[in-house]
Amino acid sequence: MTHPLFSIVQLEFRGPAVPIPIDRMPLSVTFAHESGGRITVPGFWDGGDRYLVRFCPELEGGWEWSSESDAPELALGTGRFVVGEARHGEHGPVRVAATFHFVHADGTPFRPVGGTVYNWLHQDEPLHGETVEAVAAAGFNKLRFMVFPQAGGYVEHFPALLPFERGADGRHDVTKPVFEFFRRLDESVARLASRGIEAEVLIFNAYDNGCFGLDTLTEDEDAVYLRYLVARLSAHANVWWSLCNEFDILDRPIERWDAAGALLAALDPHHHLRSIHNWVRLYDHTRPWVTHASVQLGQATEGFGRASLLRDAYLKPVLLDEIKYEGDVPERWGHLTGQQLVHQFWIATVSGCYASHGESFVLDDGSLHIVEGGRMRGQAPARLAFLRRLLEQVPGPGLDPVDDWWDPAFVAGVPRQVYLQYLGRQAPASWTFRLPQGRHGDRLQVGDRFEVDIIDTWNMTVAPVPGAFVLTEVGRNDAYAAGAAPVELPKGEALVLRIRRVP
Amino acid sequence: MTHPLFSIVQLEFRGPAVPIPIDRMPLSVTFAHESGGRITVPGFWDGGDRYLVRFCPELEGGWEWSSESDAPELALGTGRFVVGEARHGEHGPVRVAATFHFVHADGTPFRPVGGTVYNWLHQDEPLHGETVEAVAAAGFNKLRFMVFPQAGGYVEHFPALLPFERGADGRHDVTKPVFEFFRRLDESVARLASRGIEAEVLIFNAYDNGCFGLDTLTEDEDAVYLRYLVARLSAHANVWWSLCNEFDILDRPIERWDAAGALLAALDPHHHLRSIHNWVRLYDHTRPWVTHASVQLGQATEGFGRASLLRDAYLKPVLLDEIKYEGDVPERWGHLTGQQLVHQFWIATVSGCYASHGESFVLDDGSLHIVEGGRMRGQAPARLAFLRRLLEQVPGPGLDPVDDWWDPAFVAGVPRQVYLQYLGRQAPASWTFRLPQGRHGDRLQVGDRFEVDIIDTWNMTVAPVPGAFVLTEVGRNDAYAAGAAPVELPKGEALVLRIRRVP
Repeated sequence: MTHPLFSIVQLEFRGPAVPIPIDRMPLSVTFAHESGGRITVPGFWDGGDRYLVRFCPELEGGWEWSSESDAPELALGTGRFVVGEARHGEHGPVRVAATFHFVHADGTPFRPVGGTVYNWLHQDEPLHGETVEAVAAAGFNKLRFMVFPQAGGYVEHFPALLPFERGADGRHDVTKPVFEFFRRLDESVARLASRGIEAEVLIFNAYDNGCFGLDTLTEDEDAVYLRYLVARLSAHANVWWSLCNEFDILDRPIERWDAAGALLAALDPHHHLRSIHNWVRLYDHTRPWVTHASVQLGQATEGFGRASLLRDAYLKPVLLDEIKYEGDVPERWGHLTGQQLVHQFWIATVSGCYASHGESFVLDDGSLHIVEGGRMRGQAPARLAFLRRLLEQVPGPGLDPVDDWWDPAFVAGVPRQVYLQYLGRQAPASWTFRLPQGRHGDRLQVGDRFEVDIIDTWNMTVAPVPGAFVLTEVGRNDAYAAGAAPVELPKGEALVLRIRRVP
Repeated sequence: MTHPLFSIVQLEFRGPAVPIPIDRMPLSVTFAHESGGRITVPGFWDGGDRYLVRFCPELEGGWEWSSESDAPELALGTGRFVVGEARHGEHGPVRVAATFHFVHADGTPFRPVGGTVYNWLHQDEPLHGETVEAVAAAGFNKLRFMVFPQAGGYVEHFPALLPFERGADGRHDVTKPVFEFFRRLDESVARLASRGIEAEVLIFNAYDNGCFGLDTLTEDEDAVYLRYLVARLSAHANVWWSLCNEFDILDRPIERWDAAGALLAALDPHHHLRSIHNWVRLYDHTRPWVTHASVQLGQATEGFGRASLLRDAYLKPVLLDEIKYEGDVPERWGHLTGQQLVHQFWIATVSGCYASHGESFVLDDGSLHIVEGGRMRGQAPARLAFLRRLLEQVPGPGLDPVDDWWDPAFVAGVPRQVYLQYLGRQAPASWTFRLPQGRHGDRLQVGDRFEVDIIDTWNMTVAPVPGAFVLTEVGRNDAYAAGAAPVELPKGEALVLRIRRVP
């Protein structure tokens, strides 16, 4: 019997009767592939005398393993197993590709169109499960959620289940995990995976507000938690790490975040994606531990030509993880129209970036979807699913601004294959064929033939323009099809032109 | 007799009859201030048996010096001198202040409004001197120019004087500087200083085009040149270092630039500002050796809300050193109208950044002002001098976007003191008083009184609005003066509103 590729291999050990405190690594297991590759994975305590090691194999074929530990009960274990094909639809962990984009371990491109439900983990059934179904039905392929619960505005539900037992002094004792809490976390991540959703795990957050005391852990205690969390979750192929949400609300020196991020990178044997999300001060996303920039900046997607500067600066993928929400709360972050949110997603897209969705209509209980989840009410999700389907049709890792120095039309694309030009919330009455000649990739040539689709981003239609456009003039910066009549457009709609080269 | 603060102290030594090759440091001199501070400055060969050490004192009072060298003739020299007040108008080297701005060593703010004449150093008289006068008359306070000459389009004059002698193989011998060349460079930097102009020295460039062979030096040869250049020029208070212009045109690994920049930082005893300027790929300006981001990006100043993202990313001053030029060449970088260039300067200004000027009208000889200098023909310089005078009136180190997360009006200012709101190239007919409440610095309060000036950026007028505006409502993000009538504006002009708090 073979084990499926990208699925968790879990090894269970019986350890000493007196548990090893989790500020020490109880054991590690080295997995050796027949081709010679080796990966050492930390184990973790799962209560009583039970210790687990979880591993996500990324290569088919024969594997051997052997354990190491200071505890004789856990040391010197060995075994072997064979890994076969992945289960249908499983593509492995997501990694950075082509500087600005993402790809699964098996080479399948991943285009994030994600949702946000901060307190999802801390909701009871049936809401917890309904949220997963709603996110999947909306077509989102990633969900941002927090491990530590949130207090503060719009939070109406406070969980009884917290991650650590409390010591005699009332403080959290991070050496004593609450296993029920972490098993629920395991199951929640797996539940997302079962619906094809990446689990973006927000490790710390800035919303404790004196309610739980989880933001008063010391740096050493944070590190204990981080080691435990990584050992438990890392073998889930769909995990992404976000070190903190709105890190700069917390009054901590930046060096503490640098160190925690570097520790996270060092700990994770499966090298999941790593980021940190800001409030008003951007983190230095050029740091080596950061795999992609996770940016909150309200105005970054409100106009053309902004977000791409963050790509230029960081030379990493840019995820605009908080571009304000569709909803009806009075705060300025929470009352975008569906049209405006979809507009901002398209701006992000032609900027070569990605964005995340959130919804903030006030619910019956006074809470918001971004806090507790449930079904969605907004008009944006259907249009974002449509956007995602269009992204899935792009060849290669993703869309880049074609002429990132100066393109008045802000065309994104894959040079000489496909181009997307977003005309903004209100398209003009017509468009004359023109493409930018960028400085990267294949160069446009006189004689290249293109077909054009008019895509209505709100009404979700794709209308081919009859005929083809043949390049007659290719200049240093622009290419034209002389003689082609201007394309008539449904004026005033939020349109994208898709321009594809054909034989 | 005292020596003026910020002026060059030059010590002259007679060395060995056989010159020390300049890939070795011939001597160093340690300068010790009476307060205990010590600075060690490298010396350099100036031809024959003459060796010089140049030092720029930044403290008044008594100084002692002593020399060290492997050559007995240069070692064990000692002396003392007293430094008094600076000469009128001299403020010392420019350094970074308040994260995003600049200040002289004596605390005087420096607001760069600079010009660009790449090949200025390589022009003959009277053009060389006329350029300095033209730049000074235009009100510019910085000039970008290259040490190595340029070949290529629009270059009509090729200098006979090059920085190094050639060896028997025809290659440049960097161990043998052409002293006439470097003395001319010394004098040129001093000439700029005498007119109050910072000298931005572009150390390498990407425009050799096989003409001079100066871009084929090895990394070791580059380092010899860098050591020599720094030893010669560093004591000039007005020096800024720009490691390369359009570095990414050259086919070199980024690590070579990283190493050269780190070497530059390590070599310079006076810690001048250091940057590197790009073509289409931005350098990682978060590197420790970089003091400020020098960015070329055509579209960064064409719309609001773009350039400030570079501040957010780099957390350093941002100089947009090539935002296209006022002129009439067909290339897209060289035919801005004066109005458009001034517009882009104002966009840069309210983005909390700085920009540089260049002019590209085709001259009688086929060249351009940005290449060879001379008098300026454009309409922008007078308006940029006006802009600079307004910047000089800003209290503190400089203007920052007040609400950098999301301000639809993109107001820049010094919180609760002064605000500038640029209304773009075509102002509306009226404006209703409103200020953003940012998250940094002093908070606006109900009762705060403001006066408003209407500044016409093109016609260079400042018109006070009668009366005062008193805050009646201060919300989380905005402040209003209820009851104040809308301010009528000269519709269609390129206006800035200056809003100053008054007692």
